[in-house]
Amino acid sequence: MSKKYVYMFSEGNASMRNLLGGKGANLAEMTNIGLPVPQGFTITTEACTKYYEDGKTISDDIVAEIYEAIAKTEKIAGKKFGDPENPFLVSVRSGARASMPGMMDTILNLGINDVAVEAVAKRTNNPRFAYDSYRRFIQMFSDVVMCIEKSKFEAILDAAKEAKGVQMDTELDADDLKNVVVKYKELYKKEMGVDFPQDAKVQLMEAVKAVFRSWDNPRAIVYRRLNDIPSSWGTAVNVQSMVFGNMGDDCGTGVAFTRDPATGEKRLFGEYLMNAQGEDVVAGIRTPQPISSLENTMPEVYKQFVNIAKTLEDHYADMQDMEFTIEGGKLYMLQTRNGKRTAPAALRIAVDLVKEGKLTKEQAIMKVEPGQLDSLLHPQFDAASLKAAKPVAKGLPASPGAAAGKLYFTAEDAIAASGRGEKVILARQETSPEDIEGMHVSEGILTARGGMTSHAAVVARGMGTCCVAGCGEVVIDEEKKTMTLSDGRVLTEGQEISLDGSTGNVYAEYVKTVEAQVTGDFGTVMGWADEIRKLKVYTNADTPKDAEQAVKFGAEGVGLCRTEHMFFAEDRIAAMREMIVSKTVEQREKALAKLLPMQREDFKGIYKAMEGKSVTIRFLDPPLHEFLPTDPEDIKALANEMVMPYEELVATIEGLHEFNPMMGHRGCRLAVTYPEIAAMQTRAVIEAAIEVKQECGYDIVPEIMIPLVGEVKELKYVKDIVVKTAEEVMKEKGVTLKYMVGTMIEIPRAAITADEIAQEAEFFSFGTNDLTQMTFGFSRDDAGKFLEDYYSKKIYESDPFQRLDQKGVGQLVKMAVKLGKQTRPDIKLGICGEHGGDPSSVIFCHNAGLNYVSCSPFRVPIARLAAAHAVVLEKQQ
Amino acid sequence: MSKKYVYMFSEGNASMRNLLGGKGANLAEMTNIGLPVPQGFTITTEACTKYYEDGKTISDDIVAEIYEAIAKTEKIAGKKFGDPENPFLVSVRSGARASMPGMMDTILNLGINDVAVEAVAKRTNNPRFAYDSYRRFIQMFSDVVMCIEKSKFEAILDAAKEAKGVQMDTELDADDLKNVVVKYKELYKKEMGVDFPQDAKVQLMEAVKAVFRSWDNPRAIVYRRLNDIPSSWGTAVNVQSMVFGNMGDDCGTGVAFTRDPATGEKRLFGEYLMNAQGEDVVAGIRTPQPISSLENTMPEVYKQFVNIAKTLEDHYADMQDMEFTIEGGKLYMLQTRNGKRTAPAALRIAVDLVKEGKLTKEQAIMKVEPGQLDSLLHPQFDAASLKAAKPVAKGLPASPGAAAGKLYFTAEDAIAASGRGEKVILARQETSPEDIEGMHVSEGILTARGGMTSHAAVVARGMGTCCVAGCGEVVIDEEKKTMTLSDGRVLTEGQEISLDGSTGNVYAEYVKTVEAQVTGDFGTVMGWADEIRKLKVYTNADTPKDAEQAVKFGAEGVGLCRTEHMFFAEDRIAAMREMIVSKTVEQREKALAKLLPMQREDFKGIYKAMEGKSVTIRFLDPPLHEFLPTDPEDIKALANEMVMPYEELVATIEGLHEFNPMMGHRGCRLAVTYPEIAAMQTRAVIEAAIEVKQECGYDIVPEIMIPLVGEVKELKYVKDIVVKTAEEVMKEKGVTLKYMVGTMIEIPRAAITADEIAQEAEFFSFGTNDLTQMTFGFSRDDAGKFLEDYYSKKIYESDPFQRLDQKGVGQLVKMAVKLGKQTRPDIKLGICGEHGGDPSSVIFCHNAGLNYVSCSPFRVPIARLAAAHAVVLEKQQ
Repeated sequence: MSKKYVYMFSEGNASMRNLLGGKGANLAEMTNIGLPVPQGFTITTEACTKYYEDGKTISDDIVAEIYEAIAKTEKIAGKKFGDPENPFLVSVRSGARASMPGMMDTILNLGINDVAVEAVAKRTNNPRFAYDSYRRFIQMFSDVVMCIEKSKFEAILDAAKEAKGVQMDTELDADDLKNVVVKYKELYKKEMGVDFPQDAKVQLMEAVKAVFRSWDNPRAIVYRRLNDIPSSWGTAVNVQSMVFGNMGDDCGTGVAFTRDPATGEKRLFGEYLMNAQGEDVVAGIRTPQPISSLENTMPEVYKQFVNIAKTLEDHYADMQDMEFTIEGGKLYMLQTRNGKRTAPAALRIAVDLVKEGKLTKEQAIMKVEPGQLDSLLHPQFDAASLKAAKPVAKGLPASPGAAAGKLYFTAEDAIAASGRGEKVILARQETSPEDIEGMHVSEGILTARGGMTSHAAVVARGMGTCCVAGCGEVVIDEEKKTMTLSDGRVLTEGQEISLDGSTGNVYAEYVKTVEAQVTGDFGTVMGWADEIRKLKVYTNADTPKDAEQAVKFGAEGVGLCRTEHMFFAEDRIAAMREMIVSKTVEQREKALAKLLPMQREDFKGIYKAMEGKSVTIRFLDPPLHEFLPTDPEDIKALANEMVMPYEELVATIEGLHEFNPMMGHRGCRLAVTYPEIAAMQTRAVIEAAIEVKQECGYDIVPEIMIPLVGEVKELKYVKDIVVKTAEEVMKEKGVTLKYMVGTMIEIPRAAITADEIAQEAEFFSFGTNDLTQMTFGFSRDDAGKFLEDYYSKKIYESDPFQRLDQKGVGQLVKMAVKLGKQTRPDIKLGICGEHGGDPSSVIFCHNAGLNYVSCSPFRVPIARLAAAHAVVLEKQQ
Repeated sequence: MSKKYVYMFSEGNASMRNLLGGKGANLAEMTNIGLPVPQGFTITTEACTKYYEDGKTISDDIVAEIYEAIAKTEKIAGKKFGDPENPFLVSVRSGARASMPGMMDTILNLGINDVAVEAVAKRTNNPRFAYDSYRRFIQMFSDVVMCIEKSKFEAILDAAKEAKGVQMDTELDADDLKNVVVKYKELYKKEMGVDFPQDAKVQLMEAVKAVFRSWDNPRAIVYRRLNDIPSSWGTAVNVQSMVFGNMGDDCGTGVAFTRDPATGEKRLFGEYLMNAQGEDVVAGIRTPQPISSLENTMPEVYKQFVNIAKTLEDHYADMQDMEFTIEGGKLYMLQTRNGKRTAPAALRIAVDLVKEGKLTKEQAIMKVEPGQLDSLLHPQFDAASLKAAKPVAKGLPASPGAAAGKLYFTAEDAIAASGRGEKVILARQETSPEDIEGMHVSEGILTARGGMTSHAAVVARGMGTCCVAGCGEVVIDEEKKTMTLSDGRVLTEGQEISLDGSTGNVYAEYVKTVEAQVTGDFGTVMGWADEIRKLKVYTNADTPKDAEQAVKFGAEGVGLCRTEHMFFAEDRIAAMREMIVSKTVEQREKALAKLLPMQREDFKGIYKAMEGKSVTIRFLDPPLHEFLPTDPEDIKALANEMVMPYEELVATIEGLHEFNPMMGHRGCRLAVTYPEIAAMQTRAVIEAAIEVKQECGYDIVPEIMIPLVGEVKELKYVKDIVVKTAEEVMKEKGVTLKYMVGTMIEIPRAAITADEIAQEAEFFSFGTNDLTQMTFGFSRDDAGKFLEDYYSKKIYESDPFQRLDQKGVGQLVKMAVKLGKQTRPDIKLGICGEHGGDPSSVIFCHNAGLNYVSCSPFRVPIARLAAAHAVVLEKQQ
């Protein structure tokens, strides 16, 4: 049997999301449970994939299936495409597996033509509506399908208004619009060389192709990369009988959530506009009414909608985001989906749904995206500073959290400023999909127009970025790059500003921010995650402050303490430099002796902060030249300090130059050439542990981690120094202490020969930053130059430094796990690359059989939740 | 049963080489076939390994086994250690699996002490001999076992000679030597704080330990690295009853080969010294007599020796290198082994042994070391230049081939000059094992002293380096760094000099050299190798000249044609730079259009040289900044040429700077960002093939190789450009042409995802240079700084850039082969890294299932022979 590419809504259901896309699957599901859905059909995601495989053409088989589905839908609707009496009009909408709001194209009123428009006028007894629909369709089709600039159509409309001396579209009557349609068609013919297509099937096939094409438009590609959506998924296309919210005053359209998407409060939450088409609400151009007011306007419809909302939430056991249209007083459901929500809302809804008996704890934690927690871990305003601050404007609290930074008015400027290391607040009249990258780099987003469901609000919530939307009190001039407050003050680019996404307040000053706490619903959900997860979560911390912060966020150990950062401090760099430029072992040991007490204090601080938990200390890793000055003046100063001829010091520094420092003399290679460095570090690790035991009673089991190992003998050489020194220290102090020696697996050869390396290593910690660099053969510092081309040409879909490349790097991780366990079944396995805080990578680590992930303190709760997700996902398979 | 660590000679045989070492196994074999061998026992290589495992101690079990073996040997000899009537003396010699001439320690006369010396004097009726033996033993034991400086003993001996007013050791009588022994023992006590050990068993155990230790002395480590001998093999220790060649005029000692080791001629070839101990011959201090003269001196002994030599050669079916001693007119065999020989000798012996019916062709090719052929492929003197040149001195033709270079007098100076890129001739009074690295970097070696079996001669032949030894006509002053000719002319450091290792001639001028031909025995053996081997041998060639040379050496195709070298020529670099600094696609295409005809001519030249054989062309690989000037003056000139502001050009060049260029914007990444480069190169490849077909009738099937691929989509992107362009060109020309598109596997991720990559790649060529860099995580340019430490600390035993790392990099190769074939069973597989010309790596490639290896033209015959070896070795397993 050949594959089926087109499904009537009545043939699908909610479980067919991968095939029908989210929208299509839910339209089918709503049809099945008897809700009022305008009927139609879904062209599958596989048809989209095939479209690309077939060199961007729709195969004859699929065309035939679509025609058959049209015929069936016409029959259901009792209308026919192009019928002079009762013409059939449809909407054509994209619908991928994952929601990609506003990323792809939608076409309404398809099927209308010179004949149908008259029929519509007659049947609705509303010629103005008929011609308005036609002119909207021509404009949308020309723009979306044929890429004719929208502004050319707008110019015709503006001219019509000017000719009539009116301001609003609504002031144009049927004849005016009829005239506009004539001009629109002339423009189309001029641009395309052919007449505007009158055949509805031709219109439809072109629209379907446009939707398929839009899957690959630049903003969709960027969105997919930011949201880890593979391009192979493709989008489905939903073709649905049109219902009209803009046929008169008994018509309307709206969107609503079954709970408050900002707070999670259990109340119907949404907005609608009377006499409008769907896009008018989400586009944020007219300010809509709250859903509750519909109770007064149309009580029966409201009651029906409330019931449907309850039915849908119960059915999906999740907060629903619904779109509806009212046509001639009759309610139609156009869409339902699990609603996007802020992190606090996600936590509250998860906790409430468990309380309501609708979800188990395991189901509930899956309703919270780990990455979303990020917003809760970001700064909130410091209470005292907030008290002292005075809001200068108030908008809608569209996405919670607090943000302070410098003001920029375009996505480009925001990206540039962020690149310079500035904290950025992006202020826009309203945002559009083109702004998405600029929004991503911003601490907070402010818009002057648009509601809670505007583009800015939806996207910011998805990103977990603070957003104040629809702040009509301020005037934003994107051209002049100014923002004028209601009191007349003008803020310019680069000025400091603060936003409170939870209250909607805007401050024309820098308001100090503080960290959030893991309490309340957040604490409850994290508790459930801890019960469920099997992976331990450690932190990467180089200072006692970081370690303390991480413990507050639930870290169970330090997976990576980088010792090199400790040597850059003003009071240490001199001794470090002395060590580096030493010519003999004796000179080097003398310099190291100065560093020893400092290093010992570093470790004591971290041990104390971790209160006896595991602490993994990585020995000196970077190439030594990183510690030396480059400026001639600085070199002169150092030469004086060292009592060393300037030329000799210059020669020493030049001697340390490397062609490819990342692949040079660093990591354990330093300890091989200068074993005395490893000896000093071992002494500091062990002495500190003994002292902390004596001072605080904590039983520290330090884990000494040798970096950049590629060969077991290399590890053994350094380990022998560590063991010898540790034994000496313990003998001197008369204390016996347990400690471990392990290695990072960050060189491909280490993964490949992990069975041998495990003979010496008591633990492996996957250093996936370097492992990614070596496995891909590009350095992170240099790859920026060409990775953009790789994204735009769809060679890579995500940044392998952000999200672990499971196909390549992941294979090496799995190989090393298997080989390591073969040699040493109880080997401790963890990851300390930045991937340790990336949810999809944490899930990979769980599946690969690691014991722990280690990530930056602020990612610890994210990793805890992702680790719990991993357990649930594993059970589901 | 516990492991046996000590074997009597009568318990072993030749097959036990790994356990007993080469020397021990052959002493056992000679014992078995009834030859006159002084009896003794071998302490196994496993005992050496255990000695290191046990922290450099000999376990009690092994000590007990040794004592037992001593007792048995004493019984056979009818003597006893320390016996006042008939004392037992032994030699203690190292003996590894592979011959390591002069690398490790030997101790003679062990067992002698204050009592035994008197007994020896009495029994031999030769007190001078007895005391000479004792003083030699004290000196050797003190030096080798106790590391007391030899010169301190020599000073005592010199003082004794001076006191007596004589010049030669032999002029000292028994009483003088007795006195020397007293002073030697005093010195020993002063140095060591204890008396010289009188207990023979104590002497023996210390000597055994010294031999084990010598396995790890620095010169042995260097030798192992140069000869690919793993340190895990360990050395055996042979303890053998002493026989004395220095007891009088009916005594002697010598070494001989069953065929001429320089030419392979079938004649007994060797040297001996009457009244001497073995080390006197090989040390080259006294000039020995040719073996043939022994027929006159001791006709019976000579006849017996000739018979033994024939027996041994027939037994081993190979040319033997034997050591013998005559004591009181009786012949003893001390050693036999397959003799080292020059490459011409190896070829002639192999061919002759097949003619003599002693070996099959398969056996015969195994008698020729592939690496040795290198010497035949190096320059010989150009006949005309040689005719014009006048020899200034003549020495022994110790290792054939011709060499011309600059004169240096110490190993250090030779290494330094070689590091500067100079061709070096090393001239030494005589060489010693300390000189080995200096010899390795030299084109030729000249010594003033020593015979054909001197250290210099043996080592140079092993290395395939030209050597003139024992050139007594010249006076070499190593301190003053001068060489004085017989006519009084003084040559100084850095002067040009030429050597002919085949005639022994020395020229005080530069004599032009030419390439050798693969003819005669060489041609015969290569013919056999070609019959046997399965791997094809291609060459790396960037120019028609290289390609022609390679074809002469038997190359069957071009496995790597690097296109970037073509752009550095004076007439091209300008267009290349124009291309690089282009701001738009149009500018870039304009510059590329200038490069196209040049590139097309390059390819035509190579196609013609290869006469229709496979040609694999790698597309542009290096980072672009390599083509740009760095000097401000050059940049100014380029800016003028380009009509571009200087500052803009500087900014462009700076923009191309990379932190780690090896892992930056290069390889196929260039083609992804600038597809027009790949398009131009494709056009050149295809147009050239069409034109050569039309001009010469060769059917070229160009293989286009995309470098640095890590992901299949990256390859597909570039391949799509290649295919599109190729189709265009063929359409334009109205010609259809077969061509292939493949990739280098040089990024670890490419190996790991080779199944995916094979979907697009029609061939894989392993770029093991880069693959080694990425797999080890160090860059070849930078690793030099620390690899010496890695060798000396025994972390790496060979240079992974020379010899393929089979454990790490080799695993990736095997993985890629398996995955690649899984997807595309007929995928063509080759290697084009420098390892393609390394014999052990070629054998690996055969076993890994590759179709071809590609190497530099001069390595082609080596690879052909190694590929044949691989087949034979595979059958043997």
